[in-house]
Amino acid sequence: MPPLITLLTDFGTQDSYVGIMKGVIASICPSAQLIDLTHAIPPQDLAAARFNLTNAYLYFPATAIHVVVVDPGVGSPRRAIAVQTPHGNFVAPDNGVLSGVLERYDADQVQIVDLNQTEFWRTERPSHTFHGRDIFAPIAAHWAAGRLLEELGEPLALTDVVHCPLPQVVQTATGVTGCVQYCDRFGNAITNIAVDEVGADWRVEINGQAIAQHQTYSDVPPGELLALIGSYGWIEVAVSQGNAQERLGLTVGTPIQATFSKNS
Amino acid sequence: MPPLITLLTDFGTQDSYVGIMKGVIASICPSAQLIDLTHAIPPQDLAAARFNLTNAYLYFPATAIHVVVVDPGVGSPRRAIAVQTPHGNFVAPDNGVLSGVLERYDADQVQIVDLNQTEFWRTERPSHTFHGRDIFAPIAAHWAAGRLLEELGEPLALTDVVHCPLPQVVQTATGVTGCVQYCDRFGNAITNIAVDEVGADWRVEINGQAIAQHQTYSDVPPGELLALIGSYGWIEVAVSQGNAQERLGLTVGTPIQATFSKNS
Amino acid sequence: MPPLITLLTDFGTQDSYVGIMKGVIASICPSAQLIDLTHAIPPQDLAAARFNLTNAYLYFPATAIHVVVVDPGVGSPRRAIAVQTPHGNFVAPDNGVLSGVLERYDADQVQIVDLNQTEFWRTERPSHTFHGRDIFAPIAAHWAAGRLLEELGEPLALTDVVHCPLPQVVQTATGVTGCVQYCDRFGNAITNIAVDEVGADWRVEINGQAIAQHQTYSDVPPGELLALIGSYGWIEVAVSQGNAQERLGLTVGTPIQATFSKNS
Repeated sequence: MPPLITLLTDFGTQDSYVGIMKGVIASICPSAQLIDLTHAIPPQDLAAARFNLTNAYLYFPATAIHVVVVDPGVGSPRRAIAVQTPHGNFVAPDNGVLSGVLERYDADQVQIVDLNQTEFWRTERPSHTFHGRDIFAPIAAHWAAGRLLEELGEPLALTDVVHCPLPQVVQTATGVTGCVQYCDRFGNAITNIAVDEVGADWRVEINGQAIAQHQTYSDVPPGELLALIGSYGWIEVAVSQGNAQERLGLTVGTPIQATFSKNS
Repeated sequence: MPPLITLLTDFGTQDSYVGIMKGVIASICPSAQLIDLTHAIPPQDLAAARFNLTNAYLYFPATAIHVVVVDPGVGSPRRAIAVQTPHGNFVAPDNGVLSGVLERYDADQVQIVDLNQTEFWRTERPSHTFHGRDIFAPIAAHWAAGRLLEELGEPLALTDVVHCPLPQVVQTATGVTGCVQYCDRFGNAITNIAVDEVGADWRVEINGQAIAQHQTYSDVPPGELLALIGSYGWIEVAVSQGNAQERLGLTVGTPIQATFSKNS
Repeated sequence: MPPLITLLTDFGTQDSYVGIMKGVIASICPSAQLIDLTHAIPPQDLAAARFNLTNAYLYFPATAIHVVVVDPGVGSPRRAIAVQTPHGNFVAPDNGVLSGVLERYDADQVQIVDLNQTEFWRTERPSHTFHGRDIFAPIAAHWAAGRLLEELGEPLALTDVVHCPLPQVVQTATGVTGCVQYCDRFGNAITNIAVDEVGADWRVEINGQAIAQHQTYSDVPPGELLALIGSYGWIEVAVSQGNAQERLGLTVGTPIQATFSKNS
């Protein structure tokens, strides 16, 4: 089983930045299998990165190493960290992008190190602007090639690292109030209301529009609005074969009310 | 020779949907090599998916498994199928997206199954909206890992599955009438008129514009229109170092007349 | 260590052209590892291709084979060439796209062949429009599978091939004048002024705007302009968490003046 490294960045695929990171990895650990999570995170959008990572990593083998480079503070004194959890290993700047992962585990389930051992960097004098190439990629490659977490840096406590949790939903008299946390390529608006916070019967209201609950997009005619439990387990607002984000003018943070039926 | 799986979807690369499918595959069949055909099929555009698959799969090894997830009916009772042919194996929703492949073979050359064996799904209760992750990816991975087609589901006849053939060309007094079947990223308009339907000498007319036959883009000065036999063997309308689709206002379905010279 | 092939094209990822090249490679050399450099070079933009290749290949293993297909002259009599250097192997049309690589080496350090041995093409009658599939990909795959450079074609001298060097900077009384050579996905404008042409202290002026030197993006508040030595070692103009290209109306070729302090 070859070591597996995934990459999640805001580098886009227009330039060769991502390819260069892969070249650095292949130079250190040629047997590593490389999978792109996405490179289309809007520049410096930590919430979008957190969303994509948090909802994806559990579908990979527990031994995978996930490299996340969305890094508005590159070159500043912010830390670079590596984290080992019961399901997945992570390399990222210490800016909260791993919060969705970390909040799933207890302190004694995770090991965190400050990546300050420069012998595992590509160079002792890294670029001020491209730590993906000079720190994160080589660290992941050395880890994949068999180095232990404790060799890569000095231990940190879970409370030492930056946390940026998802906004919490608020209970109301008739249900919960949440917000849009992500809009995907289809214009589906994914909220922060999880399936286990609602009963069997619910409906939503968003931007003044009441929307009924369905199971899947094709349950309504093309062009019609629906709300459903999406594939990650969050309430999602969609248009069948259309774009809910554009139709309703939704954006990350748009409030949404879910109302439960009395029986559920 | 590692097993090879290709992926063709309309998921885009903005989100991590494609990465998640690869994580599911890597969890089941870590040795599989993964190649993206494209993920930029316009949402739910079965004709574009059919075009890209039909014109690509023969360039891959005959043992490759091609996963196609363009699936407007996800979550509805439409079938999921797997198909084995003399050159290539396919996993897709039963919505006609494989038609361009299937029409190349006789009934006794293909084996088709209805993917109803839930033990090879990721879960017996798949998401209503992401069968790529929960059905198509794990099926492909189990197939790549050595499971036989007959284990994955119950046999179907070729006549049982949905067919959406390409529009046929029509013979005219002076040649044939066809239409644009696809526009590529360069704005080249690829028609449904195949090289073996025209003689050595021909010209075309499209949207009122007469266009002469050439061999390659650089045969005319930059900015000039030309018609040629494209790399897949279809008549194609192009602008040298330019964009024919925009120049002539072309779209899928735009009619085109090909006129043959009397001697050809 | 599996053979490594990188791909750099202007094909985009909307169509399956890149996937087809990979299928051709996998059919000939199934063990090859494939890494995308980028496929978003603007159509026929040789300068952007040269930039991305020149600044990326040194981060890959010296044994990697880099396939470059940005080829406005496809189907014309322009040559296809393969080049072996002390660090990296290259397959490309002979149109200057390798200039940034070739100018780093002496004539006795490189071996170049004209790829005229049709037995290593996919077919003796290649498409007039898709040499990526029919010539460049199969050549790279045969090379990766163990064929020697001298088998693939007839020797050429370094002076035989097309050179398109980067515009040179010009010394002025107070510093140097250069130009923008590339704008990346973040809107950072990368110039042709290298780090070793300036001293420790410098500032720039571009499109009438004076801009001070900093070390990294986060050295200035979000939205402010800065100039810095970018990760490839060129002077770069940027906006912290913003887009300098749009802000200043920059494009490839926009002149820039760097002024040195008297002490540096």
